[in-house]
Amino acid sequence: MGFKEKIEAANQKCLEVINRSNPVWVDVIPAREVLPGLGEKMILHAGPPISFEDMCSAQQKGVMGAAVYEGWAETLEEAGELARRGEIQVDPCHHHQAVGSMTGITSPSMPVMMVEDRANNTTGHILVHEGPSRERLGYGFFSDKVKQNLKWIEMVLGPALQQVVRAMGGIPVNPIIAQSLTMGDECHNRPTAGSALLFTKIMPTLCTLDLERESLAQIVEFLAKTEHFFFHLGMAASKATTDACNGIEFSTMVTAMARNGIETGIRVSGIPDKWFTGPASKIDGVYFPSYGPEDATNDMGDSAIMETMGLGAFALPASIPMARAVGGSTSDAVNYLRQMEEITLGKHNLYQIPMLDFERTPVGIDIRKVVKTGILPIIDTAIAHKDGGEIGVGLATPPIECFQKAVKEFSIHYGL
Amino acid sequence: MGFKEKIEAANQKCLEVINRSNPVWVDVIPAREVLPGLGEKMILHAGPPISFEDMCSAQQKGVMGAAVYEGWAETLEEAGELARRGEIQVDPCHHHQAVGSMTGITSPSMPVMMVEDRANNTTGHILVHEGPSRERLGYGFFSDKVKQNLKWIEMVLGPALQQVVRAMGGIPVNPIIAQSLTMGDECHNRPTAGSALLFTKIMPTLCTLDLERESLAQIVEFLAKTEHFFFHLGMAASKATTDACNGIEFSTMVTAMARNGIETGIRVSGIPDKWFTGPASKIDGVYFPSYGPEDATNDMGDSAIMETMGLGAFALPASIPMARAVGGSTSDAVNYLRQMEEITLGKHNLYQIPMLDFERTPVGIDIRKVVKTGILPIIDTAIAHKDGGEIGVGLATPPIECFQKAVKEFSIHYGL
Repeated sequence: MGFKEKIEAANQKCLEVINRSNPVWVDVIPAREVLPGLGEKMILHAGPPISFEDMCSAQQKGVMGAAVYEGWAETLEEAGELARRGEIQVDPCHHHQAVGSMTGITSPSMPVMMVEDRANNTTGHILVHEGPSRERLGYGFFSDKVKQNLKWIEMVLGPALQQVVRAMGGIPVNPIIAQSLTMGDECHNRPTAGSALLFTKIMPTLCTLDLERESLAQIVEFLAKTEHFFFHLGMAASKATTDACNGIEFSTMVTAMARNGIETGIRVSGIPDKWFTGPASKIDGVYFPSYGPEDATNDMGDSAIMETMGLGAFALPASIPMARAVGGSTSDAVNYLRQMEEITLGKHNLYQIPMLDFERTPVGIDIRKVVKTGILPIIDTAIAHKDGGEIGVGLATPPIECFQKAVKEFSIHYGL
Repeated sequence: MGFKEKIEAANQKCLEVINRSNPVWVDVIPAREVLPGLGEKMILHAGPPISFEDMCSAQQKGVMGAAVYEGWAETLEEAGELARRGEIQVDPCHHHQAVGSMTGITSPSMPVMMVEDRANNTTGHILVHEGPSRERLGYGFFSDKVKQNLKWIEMVLGPALQQVVRAMGGIPVNPIIAQSLTMGDECHNRPTAGSALLFTKIMPTLCTLDLERESLAQIVEFLAKTEHFFFHLGMAASKATTDACNGIEFSTMVTAMARNGIETGIRVSGIPDKWFTGPASKIDGVYFPSYGPEDATNDMGDSAIMETMGLGAFALPASIPMARAVGGSTSDAVNYLRQMEEITLGKHNLYQIPMLDFERTPVGIDIRKVVKTGILPIIDTAIAHKDGGEIGVGLATPPIECFQKAVKEFSIHYGL
């Protein structure tokens, strides 16, 4: 088999891994009990590796907030000192079978949802969503209110969800994703249907748990108003399956796109454990009233794992309301999809777009095709304020350098 | 003002009524306490007026089942005797500020949901949906199980929903319809998103009611699996608003299309209180396995009130999954919409179709346009077995006679 054929075969293998995947939400457990390699005083962050000093301010604030939350420091300033002195470690979520949206800040006490890809024997983990407030640790915002909410998630919501998911024997994620694509979701910025479907699915079990009536009421209210709850499960599911694609020799498929607000990095199946980075992009955004581009952190978060798996902007015609929210029309959404077809390996068997007579979404970004065509993957994203908090939504692309560096390294790695 | 201008002005008035409408789900009450003119031993049915003898078998079975349910007879046979002797009256739902899906069978003990159009001071009522079983009274099926389920709805679910809706101060229906159109619903045959959104909305209040834990669990389970729950609220909302359009002098707008399985009838705003009928159509259907056209009752139910209000088949491009379920493609769905534009007065302000860059749905069927173009309104519908039970879904049209008779009567009525 020639070199090219080896690449084709490897990429075909990746598609097979994707199309047999069966991610199932199986548990909710404190991060320290489940994330491999999570140090005792370690805080995880979104994006490729970065030191605390080099982080953007929103992510730094997230780290400091989490340190206070964990009781490692009394104040944010003190927490910053500890982090600068290296007494608190920081490390990418992606290195610990986890992903995090926006800042991605994840610390040991926080409960994470575990998604197990039962077909591929991999797992992905992610925090329980913090709820509808624009002020949350995930956006680099920390306050007493944020802290109380996190504590309630740790003490009340997390354990209840653990009981529900265990009692239900796990909840398959792909059927919900597939259905939500027929209901106006692209699953990344708009997971409205997915969250409502999941809510409907778990509520009967939740109502039979031995919970105090007041806790039940609080939980139900929280879940009912958290329109983005399912988004995190989609991310963890995508992480589990993309990790199963990692390390397939000769494959040129992108297995992660992740941003820390300073740099965007990609990982490639055939050259695993390496990041290929470039500067994090500015976002082509629509801002909430009173905010603008000058307030914005650059592209940030592990959520582009959804696009890596054929969702988000790769499924935009499934969600014309989201296309419109980021300033586009129906034909724009279709054009994006056609572009993504130019740089991908194939189609996702389960993810379909009703409007296009159930065409399947493009999946499996090929670094060669990106470099050859110059077409960059498109990412649906939210926008964080420099000082924390959510201020808008928009579209972003990783810089071309990521793909150029990866193609170069691929050639070196395989001795071309 | 000439005659034509008077018609235009009247029809414009109807559109204004529609576009200022604000249907709100305000209560759940036993039919006998709320439906005007409901006799003590009266059973309501879908469609234009018909005698018990002339009803199709599914609707007759519904009447007999309801009579047994009410305790007026011991057996279905005895109930049939009473109905034939006129000791049980039958009358259209439409004559009592109500609508009913399929057989539409509604008897005094059954709780109905009241929707009040707060802008137009009208109300529409409809039974609480019987749940996901294909065997239900609404489909002309009666058994101990059906009876037990109806009793549970009367004794447990109805009163709980009453408490919820009252505690919430009413639930506006149009915002849910409008959102569900962005989530793959056409609100008639596919109300999946609407039901999930409504479920999410009421659950926090439901969980704070003083209900026994077992009742709560039953209710939550029932609502979670009743994908068509919101469909009935859409019908009652449409009934309230179309009734507000009734009796506007000179208007040629259709205010109801209703079918009893034998005849299809329409009502027209400018000549109110009259039905213009023709034979109920065969349905162009997709059948569940082991059933076919020879098993089917002809077109039946008041549910075409949704199409009268710009939903259902008039919004089919909002729901490509439903277009596909009845055998069509995306372009078929768009073509249907374009045809409906030919026979309608205008657009619904709130009901939009994302795929068509948020074009609004056509609303207000004009009898003149139907007769002139020969284009018949299209109706999404379910299919009932002759002996009761649900056996498929499909598309139907009312016969052209309805519109021809109405145009003729209109001329006579206004002395042309």
